[in-house]
Amino acid sequence: MPDFAAPIARLIDELKRLPGIGQKTAQRLAFHLLRADREQALALAEAIRNAKENLRPCSVCGNITDADPCLYCASPARNRKQICVVEEAHNILPIEKTRQYNGLYHVLGGAISPLQGTGPEQLSIKPLIERLKNGEVEEIIIATNPTAEGEATAVYLSKLIKPLGIRVTRIGVGIPVGSELEYADEVTLLKAIEGRREL
Amino acid sequence: MPDFAAPIARLIDELKRLPGIGQKTAQRLAFHLLRADREQALALAEAIRNAKENLRPCSVCGNITDADPCLYCASPARNRKQICVVEEAHNILPIEKTRQYNGLYHVLGGAISPLQGTGPEQLSIKPLIERLKNGEVEEIIIATNPTAEGEATAVYLSKLIKPLGIRVTRIGVGIPVGSELEYADEVTLLKAIEGRREL
Repeated sequence: MPDFAAPIARLIDELKRLPGIGQKTAQRLAFHLLRADREQALALAEAIRNAKENLRPCSVCGNITDADPCLYCASPARNRKQICVVEEAHNILPIEKTRQYNGLYHVLGGAISPLQGTGPEQLSIKPLIERLKNGEVEEIIIATNPTAEGEATAVYLSKLIKPLGIRVTRIGVGIPVGSELEYADEVTLLKAIEGRREL
Repeated sequence: MPDFAAPIARLIDELKRLPGIGQKTAQRLAFHLLRADREQALALAEAIRNAKENLRPCSVCGNITDADPCLYCASPARNRKQICVVEEAHNILPIEKTRQYNGLYHVLGGAISPLQGTGPEQLSIKPLIERLKNGEVEEIIIATNPTAEGEATAVYLSKLIKPLGIRVTRIGVGIPVGSELEYADEVTLLKAIEGRREL
């Protein structure tokens, strides 16, 4: 006797393909959707379909957008002299939340990782270099993750872009605000000491 | 400037309505769906729609099913002398997984909870009593949750069904297998002692 009616089994299988969703969570979500209003469940289905149909990468910066160019690239209020380079489109939001940065963005689509077979040619690096050719950009802020792959990508980009006479900076690495020295790992602490500033 | 393009914002909002999914998890799931194959994302949307269109409560027992009566009620291999009463349809699977129970089921659709305004008339109790009228059923096993509401429901059902000359039993409450006495709460331990058996 099967565990579930076929439509439930299928829904659980599809939910399980989401990151961080195992068998039990998928079952819980599936039964929630079955108990929920018809409208609520179908609204989720429609939101997925709508997002998938109407979103595409911005042809300029690679941000996920429903208008091309995206809202950052199209905005006359943004500073066109700075481009912040990130690995993925969802890295843009935390930077926006700081309300400190008002420049443009560039989404690489990942980081250089020889182990995973991601080389510079798999990333959106050529389009980034193209963007620098109009001479408007004065600074590239590299905000890739502080991982081995993100650091390698930062070094690679720096070597490529500095010869063009453009300033290349890297976001700071160190102890998170509100955290304690005691709980920092050695590598973070080392980076924090290396990145010390005059007071 | 909005945080996200409208279709992303809408998808995140719909995902946030799922139980246990907050803003950050919803964002992570949404961006996963946006990065995923078109086929995978649309398969999830379609699975939700399909489940919602094709599933309904079994007219006999209340289990969620795509065929009416459900696979348990329709099966000639199941023992029709026993009915196991559960709160929700998803409580059936863990009981099936034991491979010990081969009777029928009855889904109440909740438990008696005066605080939440759920009385016996909001639950599928009348249909259960109807099912007992053919005289075929010999035992009702009450498998509501071992919570105040589940216990109250068990007592209520027992008072209602015992006068019909049908045996009413309650699943055992006690220390979970593989656990240690040290970690059991007092109420569970009390119940375990009350439910002790001869060796």
